[in-house]
Amino acid sequence: MEGEARTVHGIHPVLEALRARPQDVERVYVLEGSVPPRAAAEILSRAREAKVTVERVARDRLAALAGGGTHQGVAARLRQFAYAELEELLGAASGSGRPPLLVVLDGVQDPQNLGAVIRSAEALGVHGVVLPRDRSVGLTPAVARASAGAVEHVPVARVTNLSRALEQLKGAGLWVAAADPGGDQVLWEARLDGPLAVVVGAEGPGVRPGVLKHCDLRLRIPMGGRVGSLNASVSAALVLYEVARQRAAAGASTLTPAKSVP
Amino acid sequence: MEGEARTVHGIHPVLEALRARPQDVERVYVLEGSVPPRAAAEILSRAREAKVTVERVARDRLAALAGGGTHQGVAARLRQFAYAELEELLGAASGSGRPPLLVVLDGVQDPQNLGAVIRSAEALGVHGVVLPRDRSVGLTPAVARASAGAVEHVPVARVTNLSRALEQLKGAGLWVAAADPGGDQVLWEARLDGPLAVVVGAEGPGVRPGVLKHCDLRLRIPMGGRVGSLNASVSAALVLYEVARQRAAAGASTLTPAKSVP
Repeated sequence: MEGEARTVHGIHPVLEALRARPQDVERVYVLEGSVPPRAAAEILSRAREAKVTVERVARDRLAALAGGGTHQGVAARLRQFAYAELEELLGAASGSGRPPLLVVLDGVQDPQNLGAVIRSAEALGVHGVVLPRDRSVGLTPAVARASAGAVEHVPVARVTNLSRALEQLKGAGLWVAAADPGGDQVLWEARLDGPLAVVVGAEGPGVRPGVLKHCDLRLRIPMGGRVGSLNASVSAALVLYEVARQRAAAGASTLTPAKSVP
Repeated sequence: MEGEARTVHGIHPVLEALRARPQDVERVYVLEGSVPPRAAAEILSRAREAKVTVERVARDRLAALAGGGTHQGVAARLRQFAYAELEELLGAASGSGRPPLLVVLDGVQDPQNLGAVIRSAEALGVHGVVLPRDRSVGLTPAVARASAGAVEHVPVARVTNLSRALEQLKGAGLWVAAADPGGDQVLWEARLDGPLAVVVGAEGPGVRPGVLKHCDLRLRIPMGGRVGSLNASVSAALVLYEVARQRAAAGASTLTPAKSVP
């Protein structure tokens, strides 16, 4: 596991963290006499509610915590978002009693999009999400917000080389299927009830040709309309839905079971 | 058809309109000698490119156009977003050679969400979107942006009474199906290849009970996960995908045809 250090500083950011995600606040640092009374009162009361320790610190310690930024007398340390290893994702999958189901993102740069994909993925039963280390946004507070908190429940792995990771997944018995507007197979005609990694690209460029080469299947979502483009999180959700549908039909799903599986 | 007047004023908003959606700019108004030369040069050159008339106006005219706001010497009139009537949506559907397919939104307040739903709906072949006049965001520039331009291509109707509109759709032969986490039918088990209106609610409250009463079907998207919630635009897209899949299987789709329909 690796992580990224996160501190926030300033009255509004600290209060925002305490209000929106108190469970992620590890410690609050205050420079006594420096925070306006009303803000100080709310910070202390919310910290107490969330059982977060408030430490009184000297000016130079706080300045260091704030990295030289404007701290208004207060800072907070937030729990780090932790990344998993690819092997951990596969381990979680094999322990789940369901065929492995991963989502692999190729170059999604927009935090909103990444968060939305993680949210859909979590709701639709994936075992983990794989991001490339470069040309991708990482797990940031904006991503966490956009994921509606799902980021806390679905393991995310970062890999240095996406093509190598896909080969590793294939070696572990997964089929690798890309969502690709130029794909040769209509989504609902592909067989998707086995162990699967779903590759989704960034809006616009989509999955890059170098990555597509490593995919076993290229799935096209039939579209009409004149704009005819789907958000990355919607594309991912449609593929995952089709997987769930096929698995239910095959009797392999352990999601909320269908009432009358034929 | 009805519309909403739209003018923007100030250097940045006018330039933003000319850059991002020049086709929507109907006319630019300039108070000579009042816009800094560099900004004036870009405004004039972008207006020329987009074949938009630039009118030189007096200070009081510009002040009136800006509604008394800070205009920095420039304003622009944008094309109005027009709403359609419910009957026009049905007319468009019956002229399409496909079974009618509408999306009805119950109380979506967030422009991002409305734009995202319109985008998914347009890509997945709907004939129109229905919004309630109250408790819903209307067609704003933010919605248009979030729709990736799809709002220009899918007719949107606003209705005063959503329940009455659903009864009207039922009278026109449509089945009314709600996406409802508490629904009694799993999405992929419902028969959805006929004339259909898909009702999607706001995140959190979902489709309200008073509206649900007017729905023929209540469709549940099977979900796993601990957060287990989907964005409204994702829910809408999943139902529309299932419709497209079933219609393709029934041979009724005129979306990109499936290669080997059984």
